[in-house]
Amino acid sequence: MEGAFTMTSEKLRVGLIGAGYWGPNLARNFRTSPDWDLAAICDLDLGRATKVSDQVGNVPVLSDVDELLSWSDLDAVAIATPARTHHRIALAALMAGKHVLVEKPLADSSEKGEEMVELARLKGLVLMADHTYCYTPAVLKIRELIGNGSLGDIHFIDSVRINLGLVQPDVDVFWDLAPHDLSIIDFILPDGLQPSHVSAHGADPLGAGRACVGHLSFPLAAGGLAHVHVNWLSPTKIRQMVIGGSKRTLVWDDLNPQQRLSLYDRGVNLERQSADGANRTASTISYRLGDTWSPALSEHEPLAQMVSEYASSIREGRPSRTDGSAGLRVLSVLEAASRSLSEDGRTSLVDRAELQLEETA
Amino acid sequence: MEGAFTMTSEKLRVGLIGAGYWGPNLARNFRTSPDWDLAAICDLDLGRATKVSDQVGNVPVLSDVDELLSWSDLDAVAIATPARTHHRIALAALMAGKHVLVEKPLADSSEKGEEMVELARLKGLVLMADHTYCYTPAVLKIRELIGNGSLGDIHFIDSVRINLGLVQPDVDVFWDLAPHDLSIIDFILPDGLQPSHVSAHGADPLGAGRACVGHLSFPLAAGGLAHVHVNWLSPTKIRQMVIGGSKRTLVWDDLNPQQRLSLYDRGVNLERQSADGANRTASTISYRLGDTWSPALSEHEPLAQMVSEYASSIREGRPSRTDGSAGLRVLSVLEAASRSLSEDGRTSLVDRAELQLEETA
Amino acid sequence: MEGAFTMTSEKLRVGLIGAGYWGPNLARNFRTSPDWDLAAICDLDLGRATKVSDQVGNVPVLSDVDELLSWSDLDAVAIATPARTHHRIALAALMAGKHVLVEKPLADSSEKGEEMVELARLKGLVLMADHTYCYTPAVLKIRELIGNGSLGDIHFIDSVRINLGLVQPDVDVFWDLAPHDLSIIDFILPDGLQPSHVSAHGADPLGAGRACVGHLSFPLAAGGLAHVHVNWLSPTKIRQMVIGGSKRTLVWDDLNPQQRLSLYDRGVNLERQSADGANRTASTISYRLGDTWSPALSEHEPLAQMVSEYASSIREGRPSRTDGSAGLRVLSVLEAASRSLSEDGRTSLVDRAELQLEETA
Amino acid sequence: MEGAFTMTSEKLRVGLIGAGYWGPNLARNFRTSPDWDLAAICDLDLGRATKVSDQVGNVPVLSDVDELLSWSDLDAVAIATPARTHHRIALAALMAGKHVLVEKPLADSSEKGEEMVELARLKGLVLMADHTYCYTPAVLKIRELIGNGSLGDIHFIDSVRINLGLVQPDVDVFWDLAPHDLSIIDFILPDGLQPSHVSAHGADPLGAGRACVGHLSFPLAAGGLAHVHVNWLSPTKIRQMVIGGSKRTLVWDDLNPQQRLSLYDRGVNLERQSADGANRTASTISYRLGDTWSPALSEHEPLAQMVSEYASSIREGRPSRTDGSAGLRVLSVLEAASRSLSEDGRTSLVDRAELQLEETA
Repeated sequence: MEGAFTMTSEKLRVGLIGAGYWGPNLARNFRTSPDWDLAAICDLDLGRATKVSDQVGNVPVLSDVDELLSWSDLDAVAIATPARTHHRIALAALMAGKHVLVEKPLADSSEKGEEMVELARLKGLVLMADHTYCYTPAVLKIRELIGNGSLGDIHFIDSVRINLGLVQPDVDVFWDLAPHDLSIIDFILPDGLQPSHVSAHGADPLGAGRACVGHLSFPLAAGGLAHVHVNWLSPTKIRQMVIGGSKRTLVWDDLNPQQRLSLYDRGVNLERQSADGANRTASTISYRLGDTWSPALSEHEPLAQMVSEYASSIREGRPSRTDGSAGLRVLSVLEAASRSLSEDGRTSLVDRAELQLEETA
Repeated sequence: MEGAFTMTSEKLRVGLIGAGYWGPNLARNFRTSPDWDLAAICDLDLGRATKVSDQVGNVPVLSDVDELLSWSDLDAVAIATPARTHHRIALAALMAGKHVLVEKPLADSSEKGEEMVELARLKGLVLMADHTYCYTPAVLKIRELIGNGSLGDIHFIDSVRINLGLVQPDVDVFWDLAPHDLSIIDFILPDGLQPSHVSAHGADPLGAGRACVGHLSFPLAAGGLAHVHVNWLSPTKIRQMVIGGSKRTLVWDDLNPQQRLSLYDRGVNLERQSADGANRTASTISYRLGDTWSPALSEHEPLAQMVSEYASSIREGRPSRTDGSAGLRVLSVLEAASRSLSEDGRTSLVDRAELQLEETA
Repeated sequence: MEGAFTMTSEKLRVGLIGAGYWGPNLARNFRTSPDWDLAAICDLDLGRATKVSDQVGNVPVLSDVDELLSWSDLDAVAIATPARTHHRIALAALMAGKHVLVEKPLADSSEKGEEMVELARLKGLVLMADHTYCYTPAVLKIRELIGNGSLGDIHFIDSVRINLGLVQPDVDVFWDLAPHDLSIIDFILPDGLQPSHVSAHGADPLGAGRACVGHLSFPLAAGGLAHVHVNWLSPTKIRQMVIGGSKRTLVWDDLNPQQRLSLYDRGVNLERQSADGANRTASTISYRLGDTWSPALSEHEPLAQMVSEYASSIREGRPSRTDGSAGLRVLSVLEAASRSLSEDGRTSLVDRAELQLEETA
Repeated sequence: MEGAFTMTSEKLRVGLIGAGYWGPNLARNFRTSPDWDLAAICDLDLGRATKVSDQVGNVPVLSDVDELLSWSDLDAVAIATPARTHHRIALAALMAGKHVLVEKPLADSSEKGEEMVELARLKGLVLMADHTYCYTPAVLKIRELIGNGSLGDIHFIDSVRINLGLVQPDVDVFWDLAPHDLSIIDFILPDGLQPSHVSAHGADPLGAGRACVGHLSFPLAAGGLAHVHVNWLSPTKIRQMVIGGSKRTLVWDDLNPQQRLSLYDRGVNLERQSADGANRTASTISYRLGDTWSPALSEHEPLAQMVSEYASSIREGRPSRTDGSAGLRVLSVLEAASRSLSEDGRTSLVDRAELQLEETA
């Protein structure tokens, strides 16, 4: 791996590309990270780059990406430009031997995303998706609880992300909001987001030209079902995910800072036994009505954790926790959802081939 | 209409058929109603009938339905037997010239339900579905608010009915819980429940032999979307319906007695205007962030209102507010949902012919 | 003890005195209890007694208390008459050798209550206060958690019981509502309710002739503070008790059936250490931000538990869990609160002598 | 008034004194205000002043207050130093002819506060207390609703401000938290905070050397009662104020952004009428169970409104909405509370003379 020679004790040097909506957040976190030197801020609009530079304190600015990529002492870039430009910039950066962090979504098509993942693999470089939610204390704890078996098998996931939201000019409510839910589901499930097919139902009751209300369903392993509800038109704000398991069920209410996670030892048990000498079996249903437990969560800024993970994955020569493949899996589900939506909810296959790629840096 | 000669000042005489789970509630409400004389309680198990009779105070009991129906001074029956017997008993009662109230669901197939509706129409008798929720103060107020235009056009309906529920031995979670949501939607929409098609997604993660988690989607008039989420496996209990309109959005939280209904004057406005001399039009999106209003609700027992409506519809020779056609519309949607579920969520047409029947008593 | 010869296997015979508001609840629970025979219902208004008898099924009725008390095969009485009559009836019953259960408050003065407790002690009979809340699953669990040290030392208790309530014609909001809070506090604290003094602040903003809003403060052992807020004029309903301890803090929200009890492992620690070689000490403050735990509660009717405890205390010849002394302690605090209220909140001593009585059956 | 010659069109020049905890917030708001020029930042620790200057962009710094006050082109100062220094700095500033804004509390004794108010009055300068909460949209709306009679007469105020809070090294929980509640009550009541007496109950269960739990009661006009509950030891966070009126009752839940204010048309009515020809009167109690209304609130930063009000009061030669007298009224109640606390809750008179001062700039 090209980055492997960087000493752990030295800071890595990163260039930020894109100083728009999300860029300043990345700039601030790279600037205050013990792992990183923010070497430059690059934006076509030099004034915008300068403004961000002033906020975080005197970082060199430039408007030419190619110039930035030509810097031999630059280890990595972070791309926070519009989605349609991700593919071009990421390929150029990878060709120049730089590690790459990309804003969500990874690209504007899974075909392009696939090229990016493939090139990173060939070059032995880190390609990371900025799935920020995955670095929140709540999601890290959920991943831990599922990973250590506290929930048992996952029976259902029900994710609701509704609010009176900005109707976007270019993307529908699925592409705007569901990447959060999908990247989280990808992160917390041991096998990631790998549905064989999805079904999407949406509505555009305003005549805005794109779905403003959306429901997305897909199967989980072993007979489970995931459902994502996204809505720009709700007067109330809900950000909640329920994860039902064979042992326990977890409720994550992101808008309740006093009790974000609740783990319920409640549920239905079904036990099969051979009922008599013959081949007949009978089932017994019983109910568990146990305690509820709400784990304390550490307090940290998710973005700080994310840039730290970016550095660690480079130094250790391994895929990051939210690598390009994760971004690609999210992209593939969104594309299948769009196909389903255009066909009135018909089940749409997710191309599994795309999802089996692995970044083996 | 046969019942039309009954004087308003006299009580109507009703026989209750079925003294199981729901029967006692009906018995109590008929007994205390100023409109009704509870003439008899009929159950194959005479002991069960006697027990209910004792609770409400000395009502004649019998075990033979045919004997009950032969009583010439009986105006009406209320059928609270298992769903598979509704069709046979209702037809016999209608043939005997009795008005009929039937527990939900109307029948166990829409074909049978159609026969019941048709026979009631021919005989000029009332056939009423016991959609109890429709007589709650909250649902009556919602119907009023939609009817008087307070919400504007309906953009979306999102209904959630989840709980750690009893896994039923014979029906899945759709047939167990969704009749509530569907009968309510039928009742509050001016045009009733008339979707052209539905799509259902479910899961049986326990291996119980039937869906325990379910999502049902169907279109509303003018581009809107309805979604019903039913779940027996949720550790938390939610009974909530959000009705988004072009003017206002209503949230009904049935488990919050202190604020069951909230009417939000919040939403997204999209205005179209001719943008220039050419044919091009532009849209402007704006947001309303107005007040929230929670109307006071009267306190009354829904079942008392329901039996009163049964009497009034008989006396006035008109269909009841929740007539057989309403029951049939709910049945047709459930049947289409079952077809969709068996085909992995494929969109399933609802037979519109069935739904155009009208009870013209 | 006179009742000691009653065999455990035989039912005890109880007469209910008073068939008004609360009497029917007692009648129903004595009737269905395996421990009790409801021998008679006694009320000056024989029609009222008969009505209750009909509801629970054919219990002998009478209107003369003295006649009831003369029955030699009667073991016990339950008094659910107006508070001003408790003293007279209870003394007569005790003199007649009957065990006595009394509705709250024990009497209308602590002097009278003291006589009742004293006579029961002399006669070796059970005198029990019907502090129903103490037999709810939530309060039983709280008592257990405090008793086993889960909370540590009790630092503060904050109890809120507010609602749009019926303005009582004869008593103020303290005497109407605070007996609940005080009897609960008495029950859950290992040493019971034994404050040296109390202070009460109230208001009668309507000019109703008695306090409709009230605040009651009194010290707990070891520097703690208890506060009870009662209010008839609140548009919202709150029934909440927070019990802060040195180890954990418990919140009981009685109107949240999904999470009635929450045990927070959060708090402030203060540690003293000898700071240097000299005699000076320094304190270090630290914060615990641990998990929250909500124990599952059993489901049972509190009144059924209460009548069962009444029987057990009689059979075992011991004071009941909510004995006459408990009722007397509540009464003494209420009286001191009234004195404080009449003197504009001046601290009022609670006569400790009254409280040191013990029922030694 | 000395500041009266400043033209409305010109910016006023302000010097910030104190660059500690709160100073940076003031600096940012003065910097972005159209009304103000932030002329200097002054702190004994020049490094700290420089750091704040860098954050808001190149404002001159100095460490000598006297030098700052000698600047003839300086109109005003904002004092954000420790409370014990407020008096000395404010007097010097007023003597130098500068308008003065002071952090809460106004001073560390009401005697000193009185001197400050008096001197401002003599010099015809604005003395303003930074009661930031009074400029939040919620509090401004509450003031409006009380002012226009929507609530009727105020029957009770119940304010709760509890949290797991920082145990302060120098002040108790009353002085730390209650200034918020008291300044808000002063602001929303047409006659301000003018209780004749107060009573305080507190506890120091940790042995921290000062009260960590506190209850404060005082009368309102016309028989009403106010109560403030402050607590550093609560594991849950509550910031709620209930204001009960003869017409309506308002609940302000500051931690519920979706419904901060709720106005309940619910309550108890007591009507007196002459009952018969004689002089006897009877009262009839009735209950209103009307709608609930939650007004939409504008979104603005309270501190921006506060610095704008500071400028307007200077330009218009009038007391600010939260003037020195308001700060002094809060101080007097806190002092009386401390006296009451030291005497075990004994009612303590508030010196009314102190409160009748008026700033007539």
